[in-house]
Amino acid sequence: MKDCIFCKMIEGKIPCNKIYEDKKTLAFLDINPINKGHTLVIPKEHSKNILDVNQKDLDDVSETVRKLAPKIKKAVKADGINIMSSNGEAAGQAVPHLHIHIIPRFKDDGLEHWKGKSYEEGKAEKIAEDIKSLI
Amino acid sequence: MKDCIFCKMIEGKIPCNKIYEDKKTLAFLDINPINKGHTLVIPKEHSKNILDVNQKDLDDVSETVRKLAPKIKKAVKADGINIMSSNGEAAGQAVPHLHIHIIPRFKDDGLEHWKGKSYEEGKAEKIAEDIKSLI
Repeated sequence: MKDCIFCKMIEGKIPCNKIYEDKKTLAFLDINPINKGHTLVIPKEHSKNILDVNQKDLDDVSETVRKLAPKIKKAVKADGINIMSSNGEAAGQAVPHLHIHIIPRFKDDGLEHWKGKSYEEGKAEKIAEDIKSLI
Repeated sequence: MKDCIFCKMIEGKIPCNKIYEDKKTLAFLDINPINKGHTLVIPKEHSKNILDVNQKDLDDVSETVRKLAPKIKKAVKADGINIMSSNGEAAGQAVPHLHIHIIPRFKDDGLEHWKGKSYEEGKAEKIAEDIKSLI
């Protein structure tokens, strides 16, 4: 898509530290890594995010993520891996082209996870019903 | 798998706020939600995480995630969605049965993302080569 930085990387018009490419997907190092080896996997077909992508493109991306995650973990000697995607600006999505983060994690990296809360009594059941009514 | 809390939910031996189920996957509300509507999607076939799951089970989970994300977003009137999985204890994985988090996000929810850093000169190229050599 015109003016999309990731589409331009796919076309080779903007450089990237590519680590993998096939017919449907591209994977490259995040330029501002949360930890070393932090990789982004994108579909070559432009879609905004998971709310917009078709299942086939998502399957291709998922296959590349699954293929690369253990290789990245091994290459940087990580202890674990987070897979993450941000969908919509409110979720922290900066580039509006679907991208899945593969983030190597280390035992002592100090990164903290968001804290869980509790539902008030009856609230979880109500929300579950609200969601189910839309499926 | 014996002693797996999520396998017991699939078998109906432990209750959950189920929002969706098909032959291959189950989705239910996280008991300690980061935000309201926080959902977990799991494969019925036990696998530890993305480093262990087979592609077919991951595709099934991915299809359920893609199906539910917009419904959850609409039901709780969220502004965005984070998709996340933790793979390995060092990545924050608490239950050793693959689960994908669908986390509704709101403009004013105050959740902060991990900060990116910069690579020293030449380091990114070296890491990209290290990963590529394993693929």
